[in-house]
Amino acid sequence: MDSEKVFNYDAVTDQIVQTYEDDSGINFIDNKNLPVRDRIIHVLEILLEILFPGYTGKRSVTKDTIFSVVHELLLAAQRDLAEQIERALRHRCRLKDCHPCDCPRMAARCSEQLLSRLPEIRRLLKADVQAAYEGDPAAKSFEEVVISYPYIIAIATHRIAHELYTMEVPLIPRILSEWAHSQTGIDIHPGATIGNHFFIDHGTGVVIGETSIIGNHVKMYQGVTLGALSFPRDERGRIIRGQKRHPTLEDGVTVYAEATLLGDITIGRGAVIGGNVWIRESIPAGTVVTVAKPESMYVTRGRKRDRSKNGVKK
Amino acid sequence: MDSEKVFNYDAVTDQIVQTYEDDSGINFIDNKNLPVRDRIIHVLEILLEILFPGYTGKRSVTKDTIFSVVHELLLAAQRDLAEQIERALRHRCRLKDCHPCDCPRMAARCSEQLLSRLPEIRRLLKADVQAAYEGDPAAKSFEEVVISYPYIIAIATHRIAHELYTMEVPLIPRILSEWAHSQTGIDIHPGATIGNHFFIDHGTGVVIGETSIIGNHVKMYQGVTLGALSFPRDERGRIIRGQKRHPTLEDGVTVYAEATLLGDITIGRGAVIGGNVWIRESIPAGTVVTVAKPESMYVTRGRKRDRSKNGVKK
Amino acid sequence: MDSEKVFNYDAVTDQIVQTYEDDSGINFIDNKNLPVRDRIIHVLEILLEILFPGYTGKRSVTKDTIFSVVHELLLAAQRDLAEQIERALRHRCRLKDCHPCDCPRMAARCSEQLLSRLPEIRRLLKADVQAAYEGDPAAKSFEEVVISYPYIIAIATHRIAHELYTMEVPLIPRILSEWAHSQTGIDIHPGATIGNHFFIDHGTGVVIGETSIIGNHVKMYQGVTLGALSFPRDERGRIIRGQKRHPTLEDGVTVYAEATLLGDITIGRGAVIGGNVWIRESIPAGTVVTVAKPESMYVTRGRKRDRSKNGVKK
Repeated sequence: MDSEKVFNYDAVTDQIVQTYEDDSGINFIDNKNLPVRDRIIHVLEILLEILFPGYTGKRSVTKDTIFSVVHELLLAAQRDLAEQIERALRHRCRLKDCHPCDCPRMAARCSEQLLSRLPEIRRLLKADVQAAYEGDPAAKSFEEVVISYPYIIAIATHRIAHELYTMEVPLIPRILSEWAHSQTGIDIHPGATIGNHFFIDHGTGVVIGETSIIGNHVKMYQGVTLGALSFPRDERGRIIRGQKRHPTLEDGVTVYAEATLLGDITIGRGAVIGGNVWIRESIPAGTVVTVAKPESMYVTRGRKRDRSKNGVKK
Repeated sequence: MDSEKVFNYDAVTDQIVQTYEDDSGINFIDNKNLPVRDRIIHVLEILLEILFPGYTGKRSVTKDTIFSVVHELLLAAQRDLAEQIERALRHRCRLKDCHPCDCPRMAARCSEQLLSRLPEIRRLLKADVQAAYEGDPAAKSFEEVVISYPYIIAIATHRIAHELYTMEVPLIPRILSEWAHSQTGIDIHPGATIGNHFFIDHGTGVVIGETSIIGNHVKMYQGVTLGALSFPRDERGRIIRGQKRHPTLEDGVTVYAEATLLGDITIGRGAVIGGNVWIRESIPAGTVVTVAKPESMYVTRGRKRDRSKNGVKK
Repeated sequence: MDSEKVFNYDAVTDQIVQTYEDDSGINFIDNKNLPVRDRIIHVLEILLEILFPGYTGKRSVTKDTIFSVVHELLLAAQRDLAEQIERALRHRCRLKDCHPCDCPRMAARCSEQLLSRLPEIRRLLKADVQAAYEGDPAAKSFEEVVISYPYIIAIATHRIAHELYTMEVPLIPRILSEWAHSQTGIDIHPGATIGNHFFIDHGTGVVIGETSIIGNHVKMYQGVTLGALSFPRDERGRIIRGQKRHPTLEDGVTVYAEATLLGDITIGRGAVIGGNVWIRESIPAGTVVTVAKPESMYVTRGRKRDRSKNGVKK
């Protein structure tokens, strides 16, 4: 009857609880102030409703009601966002002796600062929507872009997360950006600096690293990576965090699908990076970079034909 | 006390509301008829339940109850879908003088036409499931394919969205396809024409553009792009929309992972496009295209070995 | 009035129901025991709460309450998981004469076995979180990794799904892994064997096939594929399922973004596979493999410059 013995929940519970001991970081016991992901996403949805009023179609907004609707949404966002930022700040402070605690005041101020940036974020997003419409022949209308393009979720979330990142709010910027990543396949680190009239078409697989700097009127396609080439390490072999290690793209750069740009390099104004190209060096303004050699081999019914640059006769 | 001043919600609200003025496209004030994304996804879930009865496991369906279950689901789909299509049509009509308004009747007819296409869509999906099972050694059963493969969500949603696209219903086809994109990483524009026995394995990163035409028994893998090479523009530099600008894949074509096919080219019957290949020209039937040259360099403990075509001795 | 005729729901229902007949696999009529995807994901969420207690921030957990919280979560998981496994087993048994039915007892045992593996899974996940923190300069804290990194969802789900896969539970392992795939863009087949201290950065587009074997301290980036090169078929042309057909990565291997490794090959201890490389052969330990030739062509204002290995003078 050995195989039928009653399962010992107490023993398994004990074994699991033992794995929590002497642990930092991957359990959150006694951490009452951890920010709550679901609440943060709820705030984001309120902010998106302010930025694109009526776009969800859930509530109809008229010229007569718009002031009171926005006012109410701002109050709701402030209340919830300040609470979550306070949790994030307290979590960071938990090992420090920082009383009289300044976390509630700092949280309120960070939250208000984000709200006061919304008009500017709104202006940037209008230009992003315009860039999407102008850059994509499949776009039928501005409305279609706003309602259906995953890119809009990605860039709106990024512009909000980036504000919180620059205020050094812990945890929340990355929770926001990884939520957008899971919705869109577009992974923009909240640290990235992005200019106006930006557009990413299709988007799945795009990675934009923490210290990337992107100018105005830049366009890119699915699968583009702005990544780090290698990580500087300290004398103990630990990664040094925070250094500039990702590309800078100047105004008007276009990067086609699946191109990979690595390291702290500069892609000059108006340069065009072709699909599938790997770049590990700076590129002068106005340069077009493409895969150099026709790289394909054709075999038709057993006969080989090399259509490389040097022709089929070689 | 300057830093402690009360946050001025009225002023920020004013600034935000000002950004809404003289705007077209990225706010939806006074647009009572915008389609509601959540309702559209709800209709899609009903349609998927009709196409794969019982697959969610949420309700058990028997031979005795199946007729009444499907009948009820059709009525529910019709009611909600017609309302959303009417909203989309009214939104498109809002600037035109089109009364006596035909939107409600057109919406009812489009919705009914979609429902009457469900038996044919069901037949196509049966063949798609079969293609998935036959094409993937990791597939354990038809059930596993239907219940767990993201491809099934992508292709079922596409076959529905494509019907609405061909009826020129605005907004809704793209909302459907981008929802599937966010669930699966597979981005199929609702305009794409796709034959029977289609299969995409893994799927993440696949992009199939608006004017792509895919024959029967075509198979592709993750990261494949059927994209546009360049966009024709009018004399004012604006993109001309709607022209054929994506590839045509004839029957029996296979496209391996990360291959990129660009422009209005034709991949002939039975051709095989290797992984990572970039194609910008038509390919004859029966041709196998692969990356031509061994492209890797090996370095072992400081010693370089070039394993290119010309051998390690050079 | 032809175009206004009443839509014939009965006829369409009939046509749809006819497509269900003589069908196996893509409808689930009379299959009362199909596992329910939503319930399975619910169990997964309970298991994730046990593995990372408090990480959702939804409930605060203290040292005093942790034992009773975990105990209660284990009981809840067991009840629901055993029911879903029983459904999956009964579904597999439905055509066999296997009474007196052993499904309930087998289901209970599989579920208990998974729970008893949780302490070990927890230890593996601690090492995975550490590998993520040490491998990513953008990681600010262990907490940030656990709360926001999609990789953590992918690997925690995989370690659970793999246990059920090795017990030959049908359907549920793949439902779990495809759920994680849809959340993260990371597609790990539940059959894959993965050692300790594993890390995937960014993750979107990663595909790890069913028979892959990954050692300890392996790191990879977005878009990496561990795939099959070709499928052995039987004499009737049907795919033979279950054979080893994916790569083996030994300890300490690093695979950079978009690299593709195909077939039953072995990448030796400590080898480094560069970005974008395609590998179809085994690689010795310690080898660095990169794209051999500078593959880009530069065109600046009409002047061509080939920066390939042979220099710009050619």
